[in-house]
Amino acid sequence: MGKGMILGTMIHGAGERRTDWRHPAIPSDASVSFDFYKQQALVSERGKFDFVFVADAMYITPQSTPHYLNRFEPLTILSALAAVTSRIGLVATLSSTYSEPYAAARQFASLDLLSGGRAGWNAVTTGLGGTALNFGHRRDMHPEHGIRYRMAAEFTEVVQKLWDSWEDDAFVRDKKSGVFFEPEKMHEADHDGEFFSVKGALNIARSPQGQPVIFQAGKSEDGRRFAADTADVVFAIDGELEAAREYYADMKKRAARAGRNPDGLLVIQGISPIVAETEEEAFRIREELTATVSLEEALADLGRHFDHHDFTQYDPDAPFPDLGGMGANGFQSDTERIIRGARRDGLTLREAAMREAAPKTPFIGTPEQVADRIEEWHRTRAADGFILIANLPVLLENFVDGVVPILRERGLFREEYGGTTLRDHLGLPFRENRHARVAEASLV
Amino acid sequence: MGKGMILGTMIHGAGERRTDWRHPAIPSDASVSFDFYKQQALVSERGKFDFVFVADAMYITPQSTPHYLNRFEPLTILSALAAVTSRIGLVATLSSTYSEPYAAARQFASLDLLSGGRAGWNAVTTGLGGTALNFGHRRDMHPEHGIRYRMAAEFTEVVQKLWDSWEDDAFVRDKKSGVFFEPEKMHEADHDGEFFSVKGALNIARSPQGQPVIFQAGKSEDGRRFAADTADVVFAIDGELEAAREYYADMKKRAARAGRNPDGLLVIQGISPIVAETEEEAFRIREELTATVSLEEALADLGRHFDHHDFTQYDPDAPFPDLGGMGANGFQSDTERIIRGARRDGLTLREAAMREAAPKTPFIGTPEQVADRIEEWHRTRAADGFILIANLPVLLENFVDGVVPILRERGLFREEYGGTTLRDHLGLPFRENRHARVAEASLV
Ligand SMILES: Cc1cc2nc3c(=O)[nH]c(=O)nc-3n(C[C@H](O)[C@H](O)[C@H](O)COP(=O)(O)O)c2cc1C
Ligand SMILES: Cc1cc2nc3c(=O)[nH]c(=O)nc-3n(C[C@H](O)[C@H](O)[C@H](O)COP(=O)(O)O)c2cc1C
Repeated sequence: MGKGMILGTMIHGAGERRTDWRHPAIPSDASVSFDFYKQQALVSERGKFDFVFVADAMYITPQSTPHYLNRFEPLTILSALAAVTSRIGLVATLSSTYSEPYAAARQFASLDLLSGGRAGWNAVTTGLGGTALNFGHRRDMHPEHGIRYRMAAEFTEVVQKLWDSWEDDAFVRDKKSGVFFEPEKMHEADHDGEFFSVKGALNIARSPQGQPVIFQAGKSEDGRRFAADTADVVFAIDGELEAAREYYADMKKRAARAGRNPDGLLVIQGISPIVAETEEEAFRIREELTATVSLEEALADLGRHFDHHDFTQYDPDAPFPDLGGMGANGFQSDTERIIRGARRDGLTLREAAMREAAPKTPFIGTPEQVADRIEEWHRTRAADGFILIANLPVLLENFVDGVVPILRERGLFREEYGGTTLRDHLGLPFRENRHARVAEASLV
Repeated sequence: MGKGMILGTMIHGAGERRTDWRHPAIPSDASVSFDFYKQQALVSERGKFDFVFVADAMYITPQSTPHYLNRFEPLTILSALAAVTSRIGLVATLSSTYSEPYAAARQFASLDLLSGGRAGWNAVTTGLGGTALNFGHRRDMHPEHGIRYRMAAEFTEVVQKLWDSWEDDAFVRDKKSGVFFEPEKMHEADHDGEFFSVKGALNIARSPQGQPVIFQAGKSEDGRRFAADTADVVFAIDGELEAAREYYADMKKRAARAGRNPDGLLVIQGISPIVAETEEEAFRIREELTATVSLEEALADLGRHFDHHDFTQYDPDAPFPDLGGMGANGFQSDTERIIRGARRDGLTLREAAMREAAPKTPFIGTPEQVADRIEEWHRTRAADGFILIANLPVLLENFVDGVVPILRERGLFREEYGGTTLRDHLGLPFRENRHARVAEASLV
């Protein structure tokens, strides 16, 4: 805080909501259009945003949201975007449950180096149980929630060890003497743990930011603990000021309890702003975005949160059904929120499903109105910044061209990039190599 | 054959030979320089080459060749190159022994889509036994040579099934009706085999070339069988015309025996041309390239072929030592070639090591001389084309600007790209979706 807020863009092609792709203003093949991704990244960079972000999942069924069925893999698309942007951060999602730490460490280090220190890793544990079916014989069962987070902690530890394989001045490359590197500045990870055994060293050097930035979005107790211990940035989608403030306070407290400076853990809220010249126009856009959702689609979407549970088996106009703990091993916090909301407000299944399907955002209105709301959330410690999940490309543009200039006038957001790396943008220090620190300490 | 030869570039940063980086004409940080890779890709595209290629390995020790210690990961760097090139093919190496088919299929499909159908996969089985140490608990032992090729065959089968998850017209994206895709054109892989069990479907569509092109370079009996069954392009580095012709005839025969049209398996030779304005200048460049290699370095390099065996324990001036089958589970054909050569010519260890360290190429001289040699190899069925492993960036440029125009004059190489995909360039047909074929057949 203090140094201004963080702004990022989640690029999600044809839209995160099941029906966004039907809107006339969205190219329906956006999820596999390099031009679309490039455009979104360039608009974000024009706004001097901190980063663009690409989400991920590795299991689909015919009922999956259109964008999930057919989309780019995060590391490949972000590497391509690295080549056509110059400053903006590039954050890719990768699962610690279904990847190998050596391979993951390399790919992020490679993106980090080729982009000049702009990479971030959104470390997820993968909620969709079906994913195990795509990685069979390696993981024939989806590991239970708590185990996934234990794996994530060890996975991240190994990746960060590997990222420090080479001290920053290890490669001397002296053509005269023929010394390419100093052997005492190469370090093996020598990790042998519960889930992974990795010798190292990694075959790639560190970038100008030291290590990629770690993002995390776990919402459960296990998830929050992992984020507080490990992440540089945590994000959530709370939707309401009070919930966001609670989350913010909780995460800062957890960071402090973990022995960290709470300012070093940035807390971001995902928001879907609907900005237009007039308030009426903004609400008209929201109307357009809800109009295309059928009950059938809303139920299928609900099912996704509950491990593809079939909700068509219930009477839609009866009270929200008792699911007996279903989904607790998947997107735990989402399922709890949906069930809690339905109970509290006495909703039918249809009402709960349509509520889940409608774009819900307090960030709706004119640029001034939305800037006020943004400022309020930032000032009252609900968020260190925001990741924009715009439902339409034009809504990202309206934010960049309408809201951002107002935030600048108010001194809340940068005029220009002050540095070149993602850590620079976020106000996070260069990540020292653990071995360099030891070497310096032993001099004292 | 007939439609002109194939030309590709292996981009290997600071040089494949241990001492190339010391040459004044090479940036010593080339292996982690995006500008260097971009430059090499643009020069190759200026020459209207078929593809650029990035090799890979996932295990290093302090004795590894400098370029191996610190380099980009292939899929990330090639994705970045996709964004700054428009026509040239992009071939990435990935190991079937240490990857997951679902993840691999996605990344290649993603590169293929974002590049407009220009991706290729060099499927390798990984010779370096130490790699297992970086993937521990998943593979605590390096699988034996024959098992690695059995895994490779199954891995490739799964990947190709996944690549056909969606028929080419599956995504109708009809905004009016709300139909995003036709469910009967979505296909699960439903694979359950010896090494992998993968349900599918893949969450990404096919590209304009249908499927990425498969490259393979296995040289052993197992490797050749796998390539003949599965690959679109095989390459080898035989160094001598007769050996290349034998390899060519063998691979075409194997393709035919596997029930394929032999023209559908392209056989490529890796060559390191040294082209200069005069013959003297070319030989001077070769001299420069050998001058920096010490015996120590040559022995370490030799050791790499034999699973990091320590050759300094022997008297360098005694006959080449008896190694008792060592290295047979690694780079089998390399070790056999080295041992056979040393026996045949009665070499000492020093002589064998220095022979291995010197740039060996019949493609040395003026542009005319090298074009003649190229034409000879192509005409006498030693190769359908060549992958250039230039020791210096200037040697790639000299080839593109000196040799390629002569090949064009002789009608041996294209003037312009005729198509947009890698399959177009290689003269390979669009890869039909297996399910589309079935659907059509059932109409008859
Ligand atoms: C902004 C945001 C982005 C997310 N992106 C992904 C993602 O790309 N892939 C994924 O599997 N989960 C993603 N999640 C979900 C979280 O990783 C996490 O699974 C979810 O918040 C449930 O928390 P829990 O796993 O601790 O129960 C995202 C969450 C948020 C708030
Ligand atoms: C041009 C060329 C490029 C190659 N690139 C790689 C590579 O990137 N990674 C790798 O592990 N092996 C690579 N190889 C080695 C082969 O994949 C193979 O391991 C080697 O030819 C030995 O054959 P075998 O495995 O059948 O015994 C390459 C070989 C050639 C000729």
